[in-house]
Amino acid sequence: MKQIGIGLAGFGTVGAGVFKHLAQNRDLLSQRLGLGLAVCRIAVRDPKKTRDVKAPAELFTARWQDVVDDPQVQIVVELMGGIEEARELIVRAIGAGKIVVTGNKALLAEHGKELFDLATAKQVPIFFEAAVAGGIPIIKAVRESFIGNHIKSIHGIINGTTNYILTRMTEAGLDYAAALAEAQAQGYAEADPTLDVNGWDAAHKAIILASLAYGTWISPSKVFVEGIEKVTARDIGFAKMLGCRIKLLGIIKADDRGAIEVRVHPTLIPEKHVLASVNGVFNALCVHGDVVGETLFYGRGAGQDPTASAVIADLAEAAHALDSKRRDFGFMPHGLYGDCKPLDEILCQYYLRIPVDDKPGVLAQVAGVLGELNIGISSMIQPESDGQSAELILMLHDATHAQVREAIARITALPAVEGAPTLLRVEHFTP
Amino acid sequence: MKQIGIGLAGFGTVGAGVFKHLAQNRDLLSQRLGLGLAVCRIAVRDPKKTRDVKAPAELFTARWQDVVDDPQVQIVVELMGGIEEARELIVRAIGAGKIVVTGNKALLAEHGKELFDLATAKQVPIFFEAAVAGGIPIIKAVRESFIGNHIKSIHGIINGTTNYILTRMTEAGLDYAAALAEAQAQGYAEADPTLDVNGWDAAHKAIILASLAYGTWISPSKVFVEGIEKVTARDIGFAKMLGCRIKLLGIIKADDRGAIEVRVHPTLIPEKHVLASVNGVFNALCVHGDVVGETLFYGRGAGQDPTASAVIADLAEAAHALDSKRRDFGFMPHGLYGDCKPLDEILCQYYLRIPVDDKPGVLAQVAGVLGELNIGISSMIQPESDGQSAELILMLHDATHAQVREAIARITALPAVEGAPTLLRVEHFTP
Repeated sequence: MKQIGIGLAGFGTVGAGVFKHLAQNRDLLSQRLGLGLAVCRIAVRDPKKTRDVKAPAELFTARWQDVVDDPQVQIVVELMGGIEEARELIVRAIGAGKIVVTGNKALLAEHGKELFDLATAKQVPIFFEAAVAGGIPIIKAVRESFIGNHIKSIHGIINGTTNYILTRMTEAGLDYAAALAEAQAQGYAEADPTLDVNGWDAAHKAIILASLAYGTWISPSKVFVEGIEKVTARDIGFAKMLGCRIKLLGIIKADDRGAIEVRVHPTLIPEKHVLASVNGVFNALCVHGDVVGETLFYGRGAGQDPTASAVIADLAEAAHALDSKRRDFGFMPHGLYGDCKPLDEILCQYYLRIPVDDKPGVLAQVAGVLGELNIGISSMIQPESDGQSAELILMLHDATHAQVREAIARITALPAVEGAPTLLRVEHFTP
Repeated sequence: MKQIGIGLAGFGTVGAGVFKHLAQNRDLLSQRLGLGLAVCRIAVRDPKKTRDVKAPAELFTARWQDVVDDPQVQIVVELMGGIEEARELIVRAIGAGKIVVTGNKALLAEHGKELFDLATAKQVPIFFEAAVAGGIPIIKAVRESFIGNHIKSIHGIINGTTNYILTRMTEAGLDYAAALAEAQAQGYAEADPTLDVNGWDAAHKAIILASLAYGTWISPSKVFVEGIEKVTARDIGFAKMLGCRIKLLGIIKADDRGAIEVRVHPTLIPEKHVLASVNGVFNALCVHGDVVGETLFYGRGAGQDPTASAVIADLAEAAHALDSKRRDFGFMPHGLYGDCKPLDEILCQYYLRIPVDDKPGVLAQVAGVLGELNIGISSMIQPESDGQSAELILMLHDATHAQVREAIARITALPAVEGAPTLLRVEHFTP
């Protein structure tokens, strides 16, 4: 049987998982594929390190260039992470006509245009199923299965760490710091969890999804990103009273004129919506296409095994592409959509919690401000107060970011308002 | 731009949907694909008939042979339904080297082996995403995305008609006949609903999924199939008391020795399992792979638009295959799994409702029979009786079909048992 040579750059959690499962399921894969996948070179920082997953010592090198340059290597798998070296590696691989498989979402979100332009020019495909939502085959679904659809929207829980934290805050009533510490203790959050909790990991994935759906690379500066650091157990409790759960969602949408919006933020969603019951480290994405209607994809979004499953699927497809001399994979640019909406013009609904004096007439003042700015109130709750200070919780109808920012400035300036209001966004999934 | 010629055999709900959406999203598709898809021939029973979806009169013919034989037609889409003519058409198309796209689940379940053997011999791909679960890209997911996985199990709600009926029985307390009548009035059930309600439509789809997962075509005679006709509102009520919902599931599994089971039957599942909340005409499939873990796919399983979305995805892939001279698509046979378990050896758990005399000691007799046969009881409820007759509801631990059949025969023969017990199967989804 014909063997396809594979080079791994990176042998951390995912790289080792790929090696392990390629070995364990070798017979299955080669029978299904009609080809063998042989790892013939592995680049790591320290070739001498003892590892849980064993590989022959002679495969290891400390230089990623050795992987790309090895004449046996036909497919280069970039699992090093980071930006600069990973970018160099991919550029060099494409230059050498070697197919690239990567799971590097930050790299694609920041340099996707450059890399895919180069790949198109050189007719070398790049595969990246592992870059979004781990084992869930969402890249393939959007790119291939929904090729006949205008994608109206994608709503995704695409970061397992934050979903774990929010789930524990919701189910066990933990505050943010305690839930984060628990996630770290369980291995679901890294020692430095910044990129997860500030929303940027999800934002990178949302940019990649938008590129597939709308055929254009969105600049990170045009993405609205808010993390979960300021979500409190108190807000989660009020959300419950309002029939909602709070999830960190990546949202991509295009309106009827083709204007795109990409945003990531903690979001109140109706508790009956299927995304509300996606808990723990699981990921899920609702994709709404104009032909297929509503669909949902659910599974493990991270971890050694699920991510290895995605990389191996890419390897199989890359091997087929090599074998058939097929070169038409990869990014599909098209010019049917416009640019991103300015952030200030993004329209959505809101949850607003306002600390106020416990006196009559405060609601009238707040409602007056909102009325002046043409922002409707859809519901209001006012929890029992301690007799001195109180809180107003309002659910607001559609308003632009600009409108609501002005509203908050004016509300904060009201004498009866005791501090900065808390603003969260709401999605009702109305078609 | 290069145009690929497409012939449609059949212009019913799905065929007309394909034509309509190819026209509506033409620009999007050709930009993404780099190719044009042009329908150049359409076979229908009556070319003169007035249709909701309009197509140029000169495209129509009453002979499907005209579609296959048209030299402009490079991809033949079989959407006629039925077995014999559809089979002839596909054989003729493959013989002519034309790629086939079909949504005909009954044909594939009954003649899959023959057709794919022929397709492999002639190096002509057959695409069939529309054959299972409409717009949900489950064929592609199992075949391509999970290529590195041993598929441990697939549990699917893969018939929308029966899911609608069971949902209405559960939510509105309707009996089976009333729910079926409502489904017919809504257009969700056909005038002759036999193939849906007796489980065979789902069984055809389960056979196709098993062929992808286990690389072998299961004979329909080796599939255990039970419909929903005997499910009563009463059993649905007791299932609720036991924390369960009743769904018609298609189940495919392989055990550690590679023995396969494929079955379709009404199934009690825990109300907290995600499949329990898949309601109405929606379909959903849980796929468990040894590498990726648990995944779920959800969407519309039938209807003009979702099914057209699947056919168009196949057309795009077929067009790429043509354009790149790629011929390695299609069925992936492999020899890593054994044959089906004999039906009598299938192991599962059960719900048993037994009409009994309202006298002390009956439970002891029933429990005695089960004990003799080594069948454990996991729980029991005995609803309030009317003073004369009563019912025992038992949940049973793992037992084979053969064991439980013997148990029912012995229990029915007990003097205190007043009639035939009702037996339903249970899935707990324990890993």
